[in-house]
Amino acid sequence: MFKEKKLLKIPGPTPIPTRVVRAMEQPMIGHRSTDFSLILQEVTRKCKGVFQTMNDLFVLTSSGTGGLETAVVNTISPGDKVLVASTGVFGERFAKLGAIYGARVEKIKTEPGRAVDPEAIRDKLDKEPDIKGVFVTHNETSTGVQNDCAAIGRILKERDALFIVDAVSSLGAVDIRTDEWGIDILVTGSQKAFMLPPGLAMINVSQKAWEVVNAVDTPRFYFDLRAMRDRAPKQTPFTPNVTLTLGLLEALNMIEEEGLTNIFRRHEIMQTMTRSAFKAMGLELLAEDDCASKTVTAVKGPKGLNVDGFRKVLDSKYNISIAGGQGDLKGKIFRVAHMGYTDYMETIMTIAGIELALKDMGYPVELAVGVRKAQEVLINESPGS
Amino acid sequence: MFKEKKLLKIPGPTPIPTRVVRAMEQPMIGHRSTDFSLILQEVTRKCKGVFQTMNDLFVLTSSGTGGLETAVVNTISPGDKVLVASTGVFGERFAKLGAIYGARVEKIKTEPGRAVDPEAIRDKLDKEPDIKGVFVTHNETSTGVQNDCAAIGRILKERDALFIVDAVSSLGAVDIRTDEWGIDILVTGSQKAFMLPPGLAMINVSQKAWEVVNAVDTPRFYFDLRAMRDRAPKQTPFTPNVTLTLGLLEALNMIEEEGLTNIFRRHEIMQTMTRSAFKAMGLELLAEDDCASKTVTAVKGPKGLNVDGFRKVLDSKYNISIAGGQGDLKGKIFRVAHMGYTDYMETIMTIAGIELALKDMGYPVELAVGVRKAQEVLINESPGS
Repeated sequence: MFKEKKLLKIPGPTPIPTRVVRAMEQPMIGHRSTDFSLILQEVTRKCKGVFQTMNDLFVLTSSGTGGLETAVVNTISPGDKVLVASTGVFGERFAKLGAIYGARVEKIKTEPGRAVDPEAIRDKLDKEPDIKGVFVTHNETSTGVQNDCAAIGRILKERDALFIVDAVSSLGAVDIRTDEWGIDILVTGSQKAFMLPPGLAMINVSQKAWEVVNAVDTPRFYFDLRAMRDRAPKQTPFTPNVTLTLGLLEALNMIEEEGLTNIFRRHEIMQTMTRSAFKAMGLELLAEDDCASKTVTAVKGPKGLNVDGFRKVLDSKYNISIAGGQGDLKGKIFRVAHMGYTDYMETIMTIAGIELALKDMGYPVELAVGVRKAQEVLINESPGS
Repeated sequence: MFKEKKLLKIPGPTPIPTRVVRAMEQPMIGHRSTDFSLILQEVTRKCKGVFQTMNDLFVLTSSGTGGLETAVVNTISPGDKVLVASTGVFGERFAKLGAIYGARVEKIKTEPGRAVDPEAIRDKLDKEPDIKGVFVTHNETSTGVQNDCAAIGRILKERDALFIVDAVSSLGAVDIRTDEWGIDILVTGSQKAFMLPPGLAMINVSQKAWEVVNAVDTPRFYFDLRAMRDRAPKQTPFTPNVTLTLGLLEALNMIEEEGLTNIFRRHEIMQTMTRSAFKAMGLELLAEDDCASKTVTAVKGPKGLNVDGFRKVLDSKYNISIAGGQGDLKGKIFRVAHMGYTDYMETIMTIAGIELALKDMGYPVELAVGVRKAQEVLINESPGS
């Protein structure tokens, strides 16, 4: 068992390419130097390409949650009414953040494994036109669900409410057309599809959002978008994580080299391989096909299986690390990521390991039945060389 | 397709652990410094453990072939008669080396895929008692054959002839009892089971061998064992590869941590998984079970398969690199290594990829039939955590 060969299939942090590690090994440079300023500008420009935005974009030294807090404190004044589409743990976190800053939070909460119905958002907005912002988790990591931000965007386009999206666990892996879909603020993090360690968040701000940001009177300092704008594009207001910024540049180079279209396709194929394999193994998926996450698949633990014991065997005996359930789903599901710096053969290896660990746990799975299905999907999709 | 994720399953060079890479990144030190001297002594001591020898041992800055040449030039005077057990390309190389230095080379040559019969060596020695040395390739990489050095050693123990063994592609993966089996000189290289880049050879010399070394009058300088002995244990006669020596120390630390017994067992399980999988796929193996290499498996290309085209597909489409045939076997076999820094799940991934590439080439393989067999072997062997 080689510790360094541990296959990290949790929905973030995800594996780091050696190229990125090497970039982060460069000697430290001053964050007010011209060298760093040029890197920051290049990083910002390349990030905008991944965001598919022409609007302002900032790189924050914080985890993704810091990015979400930035979205909240800059757009909510106490007493504002906001609507949160809550499809799981991260939707709830969005709601909690709003409440802490004094928002009147309305929620549309779905059953675990279901996406929010865009029409429900339309109805709510029609009935309550004083809603100032709609917060949506694009990819709900806790349930493996993807919300339809294109459709929600179409509904919001004709209205004043801001469209604020948490895409921490999907941007860079999934096609998200920030400007085209009318997303005013989109937040993502470094440790998912961006193939970096945790520690950075990226956030964009539309012109429509700036008007709100300028008017909001919630106290904020570190997360003040106005301070970021004042120092952009050449500087950050406070000391940035220089090392991760160097890594981000290299990760963005890798993303450019592979090409966004190829990256999206790779994730779709890995998703289909994974979901088809689990179905072939007789396991039930938490999310339906029509709203399934492209970066993480949640699987219901079959009757009688000690899910966390199973994960432990998979980790200790087969060197593959997957995630369990969060909140109410703890002990009831397991979650397999297919996100970021990972590929088809690792997907197959993961499935083979899951079959073995299930067998070890006494679950009556036929060995290789999932692997075969994943192979069939792969060969039919013919990704070429 | 991530270039850095290429699964290197050729019989050397093999994958390098990050720990070893990091060790090799240490700042350069002088090769005559006390620091280096201490490292060299520690490396030599730990290498002796892997060799299972109490005799002298030297680390050479050369490839494995340099180590073999060292064995030859220090033990053969022009006109000496030697016996070479030739089971393939590397046996032939041993014979060629002997001939170049003026030896009268007798050969026992086997069919590809067969080991040498120890009794044939006994007969030869009985008939020709003037044979000064017996040269055996312990692990014939070109055919995936392991020769029975324990049995050959028993035959040689009662005789004057030196027992000289090429274990370049097996030492550190397979149980070789250098002293117990009476091996006078054993040669290995850094780029196989030792988990290092190419560039070092390791060689031991028994007391019996020293008597010959001291008497031999073949001109030698860089490869002169006497010069090495004169500077040992604190120095090398010429500038050593400092970086690889630092890496070797870390690799030896990893070998100690895993433990030789566990390493041998891991290679046996990977061998059984691989061979069982190919048989289940209906492919014919070049070596019989009773003489099969524990580090590399040679597979006969099935009728009609363009073997090198198949390897190309496996490499370019599934990111797995395996070897083809050498010499007369070129285009007729492919060779899959299970050697060094690799594990069970990578073995499964390799088999899954081979199935896919065979399918792409039109060979009628049933997907996952090999994977299932490998999984069954693994689960039955229960390697534990």
